Amino acid sequence: MKELEEKIRQFETVLPGNVLKVDAFLNHQVDPVLMQHIGQEFAARFKDAKITKVWTVESSGIAPAVMTGLALGVPVIFARKHKSLTLNSGMYTADVYSYTKKTTNRISISKRYVDKTDRVLLIDDFLANGQAVEGMLQIADQAGVEVVGAGIVIEKCFQPGSAELAAKGVRVESLAKVSSLADGQVSFKQTEGED
Amino acid sequence: MKELEEKIRQFETVLPGNVLKVDAFLNHQVDPVLMQHIGQEFAARFKDAKITKVWTVESSGIAPAVMTGLALGVPVIFARKHKSLTLNSGMYTADVYSYTKKTTNRISISKRYVDKTDRVLLIDDFLANGQAVEGMLQIADQAGVEVVGAGIVIEKCFQPGSAELAAKGVRVESLAKVSSLADGQVSFKQTEGED
Repeated sequence: MKELEEKIRQFETVLPGNVLKVDAFLNHQVDPVLMQHIGQEFAARFKDAKITKVWTVESSGIAPAVMTGLALGVPVIFARKHKSLTLNSGMYTADVYSYTKKTTNRISISKRYVDKTDRVLLIDDFLANGQAVEGMLQIADQAGVEVVGAGIVIEKCFQPGSAELAAKGVRVESLAKVSSLADGQVSFKQTEGED
Repeated sequence: MKELEEKIRQFETVLPGNVLKVDAFLNHQVDPVLMQHIGQEFAARFKDAKITKVWTVESSGIAPAVMTGLALGVPVIFARKHKSLTLNSGMYTADVYSYTKKTTNRISISKRYVDKTDRVLLIDDFLANGQAVEGMLQIADQAGVEVVGAGIVIEKCFQPGSAELAAKGVRVESLAKVSSLADGQVSFKQTEGED
C-alpha cells in the first residue's frame, strides 16, 4: 500500500533493536484518514471471506481494526491486556510476550461476544515475532471459531512471525512489508503488481 | 444522542460500585458504525472551535477519538498509560488515578506532536471523577496549548468530574448523561431540545 509506505518513509525513524518508530501516524499520534484507507484496504482484500468479527489487541490495533470493522460492517473486539474490574469472569485468555516491552501480558476476550459460528479477521499494527496474533489464535482455538486470516499494517519480514503463521496455514495480508531496518534505513520488500 | 442511549439500554448492565458496563459496544466489543456517528456528533458540536488536534487516553477513548478526528479532518493523539520503549524521552506527563481499577497510571504525550498553536479537543469514553480529562488538562497546561473542550461519550452526572470541569471553565459535551445507576437501573438526564 503505497500511501502507507510513503508515510513510513516520511517519518522514518529506526531505533536500536530493529524498532521502527511509527508514533507519528499509527501508535501514538494517529492519522485518521490513513486508518480509514487501511480499513478499506483490509476489507477489500478479505471481501469474500464472510467475516463476522474483527479481533485486535489493545491499544495500537484499535484504530485500524475499528476502521476495518466499519468497512466490513461487522463488530470489532479488542482483547484486553490485563484483568479489568469492569469485565466479568467468563473470558478466553492467552499469554502474550512483548519483545519490545520485555513483559508478558495476559490478553482476554469475553465469551459473551464470541459466537461459535464467527469467522474472525485478526488485525494488528505490527507483525514481528507474531506473539499477539499467536495469542489471538489460541483464543480462537479455545472458542472454536474460524480465523479467516490476519491483516497486518506493517510486517517485519526479517522476523519469524510471518513464516510461523504461514506454516500454520494462516492467510496473512500485510500492507507494508519491511525487509530490513539495517543501518537505520527502512527497506520495503518489492511486491508484484502492487498499486 | 438517542442512538447511544438506546444502545446503553439494549445492553444495560450495572455492576457494583456504580459501574456501567458498556463492553458490548464501546470498551471491549466496539460498534464501528456507532463510533462513526459519535465522531460525527462531536465534530458537529465543536465545528466552530477551530480544532487542530484530538487527544484521548488509551484504550477505550481511541475508537471515538479516531472517528472524531476523521470527521474533523485533524490528527489524533492517544496518551500512553505507561512508558513504552518505542517512545523517546521528551514527553509531557501527568498522573491519573483510576477509581475503577484502583491504580495510578502515568499518561504521556510526546512533545514532538504538540504544537504551541494547537487547539485541542479532549475525548474520552466516560466522565465520572474526571481523572483522565484532568490529566490531559495538566499536559495541555505544560504544553501551553488551548483546550477547546471535552467530548465525553457517557457522563455520570452524579459523580464530581463534570462539575469540576465546569468550575474550571472547560466546555463539556456529553452524548449520554446518566443521572443515576441506583438499583441497577440506568436513568438518563432529560435534556431540552435533544434530537
